[in-house]
Amino acid sequence: MSGSIFGRYFRVSTFGESHGPAIGCVVDGCPSNLDLSEADIQAELDRRRPGQSSISTPRSEPDACKILSGVLGGKTLGTPIAVVIENQNQRSSDYSEMSALWRPGHADFTYDAKFGIRDPRGGGRSSARETAARVAAGAIAKKCLTKIEIRAWVESVHSISMPSFDGIPTLEQIEETEVRCPHKPTALRMIEFIKKTRSEGDSVGGVIRCRISGCPAGLGEPVFDRLEADLAKAVLSIPACKGFEIGSGFAGTRMFGSAHNDEFYLGEDGSVKTRTNFAGGVLGGISSGQTIDFRAAFKPTATIFKTQNTLDKSLNPVTFAGKGRHDPCVLPRAAVIVESMAALVVADAVLAAGKTLPLK
Amino acid sequence: MSGSIFGRYFRVSTFGESHGPAIGCVVDGCPSNLDLSEADIQAELDRRRPGQSSISTPRSEPDACKILSGVLGGKTLGTPIAVVIENQNQRSSDYSEMSALWRPGHADFTYDAKFGIRDPRGGGRSSARETAARVAAGAIAKKCLTKIEIRAWVESVHSISMPSFDGIPTLEQIEETEVRCPHKPTALRMIEFIKKTRSEGDSVGGVIRCRISGCPAGLGEPVFDRLEADLAKAVLSIPACKGFEIGSGFAGTRMFGSAHNDEFYLGEDGSVKTRTNFAGGVLGGISSGQTIDFRAAFKPTATIFKTQNTLDKSLNPVTFAGKGRHDPCVLPRAAVIVESMAALVVADAVLAAGKTLPLK
Amino acid sequence: MSGSIFGRYFRVSTFGESHGPAIGCVVDGCPSNLDLSEADIQAELDRRRPGQSSISTPRSEPDACKILSGVLGGKTLGTPIAVVIENQNQRSSDYSEMSALWRPGHADFTYDAKFGIRDPRGGGRSSARETAARVAAGAIAKKCLTKIEIRAWVESVHSISMPSFDGIPTLEQIEETEVRCPHKPTALRMIEFIKKTRSEGDSVGGVIRCRISGCPAGLGEPVFDRLEADLAKAVLSIPACKGFEIGSGFAGTRMFGSAHNDEFYLGEDGSVKTRTNFAGGVLGGISSGQTIDFRAAFKPTATIFKTQNTLDKSLNPVTFAGKGRHDPCVLPRAAVIVESMAALVVADAVLAAGKTLPLK
Amino acid sequence: MSGSIFGRYFRVSTFGESHGPAIGCVVDGCPSNLDLSEADIQAELDRRRPGQSSISTPRSEPDACKILSGVLGGKTLGTPIAVVIENQNQRSSDYSEMSALWRPGHADFTYDAKFGIRDPRGGGRSSARETAARVAAGAIAKKCLTKIEIRAWVESVHSISMPSFDGIPTLEQIEETEVRCPHKPTALRMIEFIKKTRSEGDSVGGVIRCRISGCPAGLGEPVFDRLEADLAKAVLSIPACKGFEIGSGFAGTRMFGSAHNDEFYLGEDGSVKTRTNFAGGVLGGISSGQTIDFRAAFKPTATIFKTQNTLDKSLNPVTFAGKGRHDPCVLPRAAVIVESMAALVVADAVLAAGKTLPLK
Repeated sequence: MSGSIFGRYFRVSTFGESHGPAIGCVVDGCPSNLDLSEADIQAELDRRRPGQSSISTPRSEPDACKILSGVLGGKTLGTPIAVVIENQNQRSSDYSEMSALWRPGHADFTYDAKFGIRDPRGGGRSSARETAARVAAGAIAKKCLTKIEIRAWVESVHSISMPSFDGIPTLEQIEETEVRCPHKPTALRMIEFIKKTRSEGDSVGGVIRCRISGCPAGLGEPVFDRLEADLAKAVLSIPACKGFEIGSGFAGTRMFGSAHNDEFYLGEDGSVKTRTNFAGGVLGGISSGQTIDFRAAFKPTATIFKTQNTLDKSLNPVTFAGKGRHDPCVLPRAAVIVESMAALVVADAVLAAGKTLPLK
Repeated sequence: MSGSIFGRYFRVSTFGESHGPAIGCVVDGCPSNLDLSEADIQAELDRRRPGQSSISTPRSEPDACKILSGVLGGKTLGTPIAVVIENQNQRSSDYSEMSALWRPGHADFTYDAKFGIRDPRGGGRSSARETAARVAAGAIAKKCLTKIEIRAWVESVHSISMPSFDGIPTLEQIEETEVRCPHKPTALRMIEFIKKTRSEGDSVGGVIRCRISGCPAGLGEPVFDRLEADLAKAVLSIPACKGFEIGSGFAGTRMFGSAHNDEFYLGEDGSVKTRTNFAGGVLGGISSGQTIDFRAAFKPTATIFKTQNTLDKSLNPVTFAGKGRHDPCVLPRAAVIVESMAALVVADAVLAAGKTLPLK
Repeated sequence: MSGSIFGRYFRVSTFGESHGPAIGCVVDGCPSNLDLSEADIQAELDRRRPGQSSISTPRSEPDACKILSGVLGGKTLGTPIAVVIENQNQRSSDYSEMSALWRPGHADFTYDAKFGIRDPRGGGRSSARETAARVAAGAIAKKCLTKIEIRAWVESVHSISMPSFDGIPTLEQIEETEVRCPHKPTALRMIEFIKKTRSEGDSVGGVIRCRISGCPAGLGEPVFDRLEADLAKAVLSIPACKGFEIGSGFAGTRMFGSAHNDEFYLGEDGSVKTRTNFAGGVLGGISSGQTIDFRAAFKPTATIFKTQNTLDKSLNPVTFAGKGRHDPCVLPRAAVIVESMAALVVADAVLAAGKTLPLK
Repeated sequence: MSGSIFGRYFRVSTFGESHGPAIGCVVDGCPSNLDLSEADIQAELDRRRPGQSSISTPRSEPDACKILSGVLGGKTLGTPIAVVIENQNQRSSDYSEMSALWRPGHADFTYDAKFGIRDPRGGGRSSARETAARVAAGAIAKKCLTKIEIRAWVESVHSISMPSFDGIPTLEQIEETEVRCPHKPTALRMIEFIKKTRSEGDSVGGVIRCRISGCPAGLGEPVFDRLEADLAKAVLSIPACKGFEIGSGFAGTRMFGSAHNDEFYLGEDGSVKTRTNFAGGVLGGISSGQTIDFRAAFKPTATIFKTQNTLDKSLNPVTFAGKGRHDPCVLPRAAVIVESMAALVVADAVLAAGKTLPLK
């Protein structure tokens, strides 16, 4: 019953209910003598926090983080780093109805089935608010991965997709619009679509794309702890995520081997490269030095304002319509979370491979 | 550098190179007093082993398993169960060229990058032969899950897909054709397509569908060790797997929340059910009691008989064409492996949830 | 580099430096629907905290705990329980000299060697203050072990030992004197001895005895995760602990097998008992249902007020004498820590054995 | 219920019952490109195996090991190394009576209580025969620790103790007599005593001393995964072990801090040394670069030939006297096992500290 610890070497323990006193994380395994400040973590939290834009929940949490341990004079000590984020803007009265029924698409029923008790305030532990702790941990991991660039962005919302392209967008390109799609014309259409969906009391899903460059060859372990397997686990552990594909993914199942195999050649810089990257940067579970390239599917937000049929805890049929403050589309914020989870996986893989952090 | 142990409570350690003396597994955590014989394991191994049909590799391994420990008089002792499968039909001369170059789409380059040494015979540890050990372990897990039905089958090969349907096919329906697609007209088309692809020296991928029924509500842990996250890791750890989706998956990203949310209702048998199953049997990382339903994408087999460009270990450009015995399509055998990995995940989740095996 | 997580099923992650903002723990794996309040934890913390008596350090920390997550309305939720204890009474100026030299008997040198950085304020992470977080976690474990009685007490201080006896003293007997030796005449002599030692600027060690009754047969796993092995690890992980023995321990090495083997007989209550308990309650790594009985050796406190020779960080010989507030004998407070660690081990073993908490 | 995997980074999974087909281990995490042959492992197994001398059991097992995976052309591949030892000299008829009763001092009762089933042949999994698999794994660990010397020897048998001395005996000094006490006059007295004890149908215990030199400063993790805690767990996991002490151990509890603190000074070779070594080579859980020095207490062998009272499985009082082939004193062989477990701990600690094996 203990599922809140992630990683084998760079280990993150998270805690916290949406409307409890605080959420947070403890990172055990971060190397010593690394520059780290609350500002480093806050910058990432600010990207994830709600209330930033016209298309996300108006719940406005400052999400101010506090480092409780593991850092002295701006340097990590090599000891556990605890980060706490107090919950401030709690409007628990919004959620009173929730304790008595099971909202469709939410974890109310399964938490009741598993634990026989549930914090109904804002979804408790199952709330996406929990991911703030992951973003804090991911910010620490990113500080260890200075030579590695990890970028995630919104590739599609519902059926609106940006054009395909090579390379990795800059942080500025991603952050240019509130929807975190680096192709501005598409971004504007996405924003329109999300606003329209919200005005109808509905919600919508989409796809996050993530690319990681600068990752050395040799990360990932054979057989079970493959790099793509750990990335898949990390990504599927994010609330609302329903799918993961790396490289060619599901589309690759409709290719022939002669087209899919990425041929090796010697790059002008003397390094081994592949002419295509259908593998998505991993071969046999181990990074090849090519760009790691994966997608994550996110379902529409479960909270909608339309009336739905469901059951209450006494098994009576009831109707339910969401109230309160919710994102009609989790994608823009999910991009930050995907980046964070990817950073945790890569930092762990670096240590698992017997290399040291920060990666040189 | 230790990635060959799977599970936290039902733990499986595998070992073995494709052309070494033997492959095998040690299962630590299987409960005592369970009926188990070599025949139970052999039955599953026989489904996976090569040389069974007109569309798989003619390499014919008997894959005879031997239980070395943990079982006495047909009952498990609660102690580690070691299973060994000797490698017999080794034609290592087929692979002599391989040690000097990096085959496209294979793990040769990444193993060299990671380990500085590699067993070139049949792909060594990166060979799909390693999965026989997983099937042996999965057979033991299945014996613990008597009330749970886990079935995987071939849903599509390249662009040939079977019609969608509800429910779970029987083992007989799956095994009726050598391609393990339970819809016979589609299966026959798949077989034709695979044969044609092989005759052209090429290979092809496809999609495995897996459904699990009888799984009680309450399996899976919140946050990181979600049931779908563990399934994703398990499935992505299978050689050639490039994608995983549960429930609505990637298609669900083009739905609205009002359509995607599965409404709860009271079944005639008094149990809580949902009218649809876009969630795929999990909510908030925890099983809901509905059918668990996921897909896995497999790329085309890396070994093809067409000439490809690549590099040798001295970084010189060379050409390479596969020789020897290989499946032009891994899907039929991958179905058995997906079932095995799913069984390992579910057995582990049962123990993690504080329930006992065999599940009652 | 991540050594601050304990347990496999009942998992505890601790954090905090002695003079940082706070110390604390996150308990992941505690079952749901258990009664738990801050008062439960505070009661144990109050037993461990400094400044309580004439023989411990006058540093007076209120050690007030705050539960940040995992509990709602006095019941555990089954989600991680974070407990934070703010550091209040920090007199860091006492410790300024410490950053420049390596105190004999302390971890200054080894932390510098390992991490290249060290929090010199009060010993940082290596301070015994860290054990407050363990006591908080142990208090939670104890709430899960209602039928099991775990008692630790001071059996000897230097060469002053209490008479041997059977059975388990009550909490009241242990707490009657500030030295936590339940034999009052011995306790009074110990107190005199500790006071005299302190007046000489010196320190002294001793032995903790711990007995656990009510533990069902069947806890502990064969081979590596034996109950006594996990207890030994738990106890040796406490600062200043240098030895562990269970049952006959080192004295048993001078016995013959014919005297050492504990004969089984049928108790009047129909349960299986042994006439002697040289095994200390475990056979083959598994609890037998007899009282678990072990000892832990604690060295004299490293901080003394006599002048000692040592090196500074530039490898120059220097002298050093302790200042500030320190216990001349850690034993009375160590008893509480030993109890806590034993509770963590037993709670973990119960879950590992597939039993549920609270133990019925 | 899975307790047969040891280590976090250098991970060992063992399996096997005493009289089953085979015992063995799988080592996952051994680095690649290390020289390793069956002869390396056999050499250590030959030290542990029975039937070597006048004071051990006449059961004569060749204990021939076979490497099944992970090694090619005398070099490790970085993949799991499986080692199998077939059980050959099984005289199971000796043990027929055992299935019906619980031998005093053995694990029969606790295995029955835990598992509800037990392999009565030679003690099954609880047999000391299981330690051969540890010795095989330890031999692999030793190959990774070329600069580190790990030596264990018999310091005392019953009340016969060798004189104290500094330094580490050579392998030749230890192996000179069959009792593995490097002080020959004491060794001869021990042998006499063991023979006399055996002639009386009794058994006897003793103390193993282990010293490790060449261990760099910085191994071991703060708080829970301290080097001494991991050593204690490793040692207490050996059958018949009842105690562990490091450095001053229990004797140190009768010292004052002013005598116990090891003063630092600068050695002639420019390295930091301590004038005494009461710490036993660890400070704050981390190796200091001084010799690691610990003791392990072993109880008298449980199997004796005198008649003892016990219960059968129907709870009837019965008498029992051991038959068959047994060591009257496990100490000489335990020395080899202690060395092996220490090697596993050190190899794991090296990897945990982010250093690479083989240690340079």
